[in-house]
Amino acid sequence: MNTTLKIGLVSISDRASRGVYRDAGLPALQEWFARALSSPWQSITRLIPDEQQLIETMLKELADQEGCHLILTTGGTGPAPRDVTPEATLAVAHKVLPGFGEQMRAVSLRYVPTAILSRQVGVVRGQCLILNLPGQPKAIKETLDGIFSAVPYCIDLIGGPYIETHAEIITAFRPKSAQRPAP
Amino acid sequence: MNTTLKIGLVSISDRASRGVYRDAGLPALQEWFARALSSPWQSITRLIPDEQQLIETMLKELADQEGCHLILTTGGTGPAPRDVTPEATLAVAHKVLPGFGEQMRAVSLRYVPTAILSRQVGVVRGQCLILNLPGQPKAIKETLDGIFSAVPYCIDLIGGPYIETHAEIITAFRPKSAQRPAP
Amino acid sequence: MNTTLKIGLVSISDRASRGVYRDAGLPALQEWFARALSSPWQSITRLIPDEQQLIETMLKELADQEGCHLILTTGGTGPAPRDVTPEATLAVAHKVLPGFGEQMRAVSLRYVPTAILSRQVGVVRGQCLILNLPGQPKAIKETLDGIFSAVPYCIDLIGGPYIETHAEIITAFRPKSAQRPAP
Repeated sequence: MNTTLKIGLVSISDRASRGVYRDAGLPALQEWFARALSSPWQSITRLIPDEQQLIETMLKELADQEGCHLILTTGGTGPAPRDVTPEATLAVAHKVLPGFGEQMRAVSLRYVPTAILSRQVGVVRGQCLILNLPGQPKAIKETLDGIFSAVPYCIDLIGGPYIETHAEIITAFRPKSAQRPAP
Repeated sequence: MNTTLKIGLVSISDRASRGVYRDAGLPALQEWFARALSSPWQSITRLIPDEQQLIETMLKELADQEGCHLILTTGGTGPAPRDVTPEATLAVAHKVLPGFGEQMRAVSLRYVPTAILSRQVGVVRGQCLILNLPGQPKAIKETLDGIFSAVPYCIDLIGGPYIETHAEIITAFRPKSAQRPAP
Repeated sequence: MNTTLKIGLVSISDRASRGVYRDAGLPALQEWFARALSSPWQSITRLIPDEQQLIETMLKELADQEGCHLILTTGGTGPAPRDVTPEATLAVAHKVLPGFGEQMRAVSLRYVPTAILSRQVGVVRGQCLILNLPGQPKAIKETLDGIFSAVPYCIDLIGGPYIETHAEIITAFRPKSAQRPAP
């Protein structure tokens, strides 16, 4: 029996959180997961300004109190002074997985040379994987398409539920020893 | 009206700074920028030995007192005990941009397998972007050709002047919303 | 006259160290070096559990007391709670060489998308280069095939013996100024 995957979706933007414009990150994330996952999941969404202390508190709450197995942030990863999402994520990390940052930038570099400026990181906190995604809906989709294949096995390894996907959208890659027979 | 871009060029080498051989890094950097930039710029050059404390002091002086928007170092990024440029750069950093190190190595790996040994980093200090380049003129040119497209937009984001380039040498890539009409 | 290269080979696995299954990492490493190196070398092997303090002690002993010029670890680099090899390696590092981690993951990504989950690092401690390799024999071979070209020159730069290889297996890449004439 599968446990339901709990996903925290956190949009980080001064302007969207003040209502200056409509947040586009959370709907893009919701849409991607609705298309990609075939096993049960639910999401918890948050929209907050670019304040490091607030982001840290939110990530800890979602991982530790809400029991999220996966948290995706969107926004706040550039070089500007107000971009502090990676700092907040590293501050709550138990383990850093540098391959996520590297590969998310490598994927985005196929589309824009300025992907080099993104400071996205991937970390583990307890039984939760936290990934920083870009802010733009198009870039969110490109990034998830490029790296999500490795996420289900990562969630297995840190003790979360067994994630299954719609293979025509994305494949969940696992070594043979970690695969369960199709139901 | 454009503000003039101030570029700090710092060659780091025990032997060149003692006059044992002629520094080739600073002329290579000057030549690259003379060919690439079409907007106004000026440079300040320094030639110093591989002493971490001295490098840190120099980077802070160029960023904080001289008001450089961009600093390029050349030399001192290898694995040898006297190579301390990355340590000095990280010590004065406010934000680390890991994409620069990754992409500079990826570019150099197209030419030599030992590019893997380079520990180059890119960081922001205040309103200044600091990049570690290799020591050899050929590798300096290859690296700047490979990553400079993302630099003008980065300088925009940290509050510096709007950089324009000669498109036949290098393109300054910006998202549409950040582009200014050609004069 | 060549000094003999001393290689420390450390397999890190709770189960293999308790005898639950037979370690396959050390034989894979031994076999790779036996095929690749043409200059004199000797190895020291260790099989230990995933205990960070123990791994740190072992790495320091091999580098400082045993005088190893190169240490390869195998195992313990994933995201699971017991995977602590990178933490132990970073804790004893004098210099981190991020290019090794990046390139080892890039090489493995050609074979499996979950290579993104590996947290392998390469560091220098004194006159010793320490590299974290994957746990599986197949992945060990793929990784060494993909990055070893840069290792001999790195060992030169940190003061170790001049390594020569069988060119049909792997090429030792050095800049011309660092090459010795064939004997």
